[in-house]
Amino acid sequence: MNHHDPLSALTFYRNSLTLPLQQYKVVDLMRSTGGLSRSDLARQLGYSRATITGLVKDLIDRTIIREIADAESTGGRPARILDFNASFAYVIGVDMGATSVDIALADFRGELLLRHREPIDVKQGPDPVLDRVATIMQDLIQQAKIPNDKVRSIGIGVPGPVDFLNGVLSMPPIMPGWERYPIRTKIQETFPLATVVVDNDVNVMALGELRSGVGKGVDNFIFVKVGTGIGAGIIVDGGIYRGSNGCAGDIGHIQADRNGPICHCGNVGCVEAMASGSALARQAMQAAQSGRSPILAEYLAAGVTSLTAEHIGMAAHAGDKVAMELIKTSGTLIGEVLAGVVNFFNPSLILIGGGVANIGTQFLSTIRRGILSRSLPLSTQHLRIDYSPMGEDAGVIGAVALAIEHIFVGKL
Amino acid sequence: MNHHDPLSALTFYRNSLTLPLQQYKVVDLMRSTGGLSRSDLARQLGYSRATITGLVKDLIDRTIIREIADAESTGGRPARILDFNASFAYVIGVDMGATSVDIALADFRGELLLRHREPIDVKQGPDPVLDRVATIMQDLIQQAKIPNDKVRSIGIGVPGPVDFLNGVLSMPPIMPGWERYPIRTKIQETFPLATVVVDNDVNVMALGELRSGVGKGVDNFIFVKVGTGIGAGIIVDGGIYRGSNGCAGDIGHIQADRNGPICHCGNVGCVEAMASGSALARQAMQAAQSGRSPILAEYLAAGVTSLTAEHIGMAAHAGDKVAMELIKTSGTLIGEVLAGVVNFFNPSLILIGGGVANIGTQFLSTIRRGILSRSLPLSTQHLRIDYSPMGEDAGVIGAVALAIEHIFVGKL
Repeated sequence: MNHHDPLSALTFYRNSLTLPLQQYKVVDLMRSTGGLSRSDLARQLGYSRATITGLVKDLIDRTIIREIADAESTGGRPARILDFNASFAYVIGVDMGATSVDIALADFRGELLLRHREPIDVKQGPDPVLDRVATIMQDLIQQAKIPNDKVRSIGIGVPGPVDFLNGVLSMPPIMPGWERYPIRTKIQETFPLATVVVDNDVNVMALGELRSGVGKGVDNFIFVKVGTGIGAGIIVDGGIYRGSNGCAGDIGHIQADRNGPICHCGNVGCVEAMASGSALARQAMQAAQSGRSPILAEYLAAGVTSLTAEHIGMAAHAGDKVAMELIKTSGTLIGEVLAGVVNFFNPSLILIGGGVANIGTQFLSTIRRGILSRSLPLSTQHLRIDYSPMGEDAGVIGAVALAIEHIFVGKL
Repeated sequence: MNHHDPLSALTFYRNSLTLPLQQYKVVDLMRSTGGLSRSDLARQLGYSRATITGLVKDLIDRTIIREIADAESTGGRPARILDFNASFAYVIGVDMGATSVDIALADFRGELLLRHREPIDVKQGPDPVLDRVATIMQDLIQQAKIPNDKVRSIGIGVPGPVDFLNGVLSMPPIMPGWERYPIRTKIQETFPLATVVVDNDVNVMALGELRSGVGKGVDNFIFVKVGTGIGAGIIVDGGIYRGSNGCAGDIGHIQADRNGPICHCGNVGCVEAMASGSALARQAMQAAQSGRSPILAEYLAAGVTSLTAEHIGMAAHAGDKVAMELIKTSGTLIGEVLAGVVNFFNPSLILIGGGVANIGTQFLSTIRRGILSRSLPLSTQHLRIDYSPMGEDAGVIGAVALAIEHIFVGKL
């Protein structure tokens, strides 16, 4: 298989269904706002009522949208609310982590129908991993009795920098064998009619919170994933901001301490090298082996072979001073780096997710303190900082939303 | 005068001319692309050719746009290119610095007609300063024989954080007497028919480069002003990104060194406290008085009362080792902070402007090195880092562009 397909950018939308631009705009608006009446559509799109009536008729004829009765109207002729037709198409969302994959089948309205999660190891390389992913997807649609050709779009979040247009990973630090591997083409061997959209995992999580979570209606926010690595998904003006090379949000390699340790990227004192899940795991092993932390040492003695951030959380909860200190240092460093991001970007919401978000509230509160101690008061006046309420679901929900956004393409 | 006007947000567009939404969209598109044919408009807006013909006729009838012959067409009936009618309205752009003001009168197409620059001192407070600004504006329109009611919009860039909707400064560090002063109302005493738009000076500079400079057509870029303070203007998707409180881009208070000096904001090691024009001026005085820099000491001996960043530039040019070192340290710190911004935002262009940009090419090259040494290769693959070619003109050109963007408001 050719790993450098110059045509893939041109064929990005090859499988997307083409809609006339005005019909597309109706669909696009409904996607971000939910059910609307014809008058709502006319007002928000700036089209005449007659134009809207025609467009809606076309979309109903194509079975893309349908009318649902307006429950609130009582007398006279009720204004009909329009909604998507759930069975028009189906999508699959894939949240791929370094060690597990979470796959959901959803209808055209984004409702999850079936979901499957299992361990994988991305280091095995793209072919075996994606073969397994394709098999799971096949199983899901068979279970739901949905024919292959009804799956119109597949969204995939992957843990690394993505060249979005080409749908390939670009210099991925934790999955080196995937460099420019044509994920899209590979998945289309199994789903030849589906559009396949690949994006960075954190972007996808941010999209999940934007479309179905607390990010709904929030113009500018950041989703920060603290897991093996540290990264951010950025929402600007109701959409994912990807930057010029698709690698916006790569905050893991911002310097947290110029006297810090050397990071795997070669630079000194990156926040990822000092405060990520893997940094915490390393610090936990040191604290256990040196005897500084009796509780972490107990875990080792009890047969745990490798300590993780979660063990630190448990130890801190049990009163271990060293574990508490590790959490505090990590949260503070992350908070200080995010303070710089806040001064630059002035978001109204920061959501913290990823595995390390499960270690307790002390982590969140030190991140908050770190941000507030180094930001300007004006920037933080209306800033909310919280754990992602979706938690581990954000990835797969976002992947479904990503898929739905690419079913159609508008054309003149 | 009431400094807390709750109505001002509602009256933001009070003086803007209302256009039906579709006409507005034609005007808005032409503003960002320049001269277009009717077919270009139809294609880019997704309106039918008949709709465009009607809209264009309305806009020509209102004397907002006009036809100019297509020079490139030779045989048959030439496609007419549409352009703005220069004399439909006039605007004024004001670039207010801490110590000087730069004011330009421009026509509806953004061509500068007259310009005036003079020293001011914003510390005198808003009333005397804005009285003087109003007098200069009056002088300019009289000189150009333009009646007061033809001035439809005034754009003002100010050196501090701006509450954009209310048009007031919010906690401005270098102009404390201006806190929430109603600049808009004050200017409208002299120009009652004009829309008055107030924005942060660096945002306005970024807009200048976006509309008329090297930023034309660049989706994501940053304008960094290194003057008395340090700040950035952010362009996302062809427009100014202001953030949730209008204070996006406040990079001067990002930490450059956790062991650095205390900043006037109260935090430790802000890049502004270590690398701005005022920091350099302070370091120059120390180097001269301690005798470490013979050339800077000479300037003092020759009667210079206060050394500036420009003196450091001159001394470095003359071979002074300490001056070179000061430039290198400042550029490196700014570069390292911008590296964090690059990792987060992944821009394709960074423009450096402000007074310190005049001290020579060594400053730019150390900023570049600082950015490249701490950014990921993927983020900097297509990144261009340069001095702003507009230099000191960016502010006033941007203020004119800001004014033009607010002449009209679209309404259904």
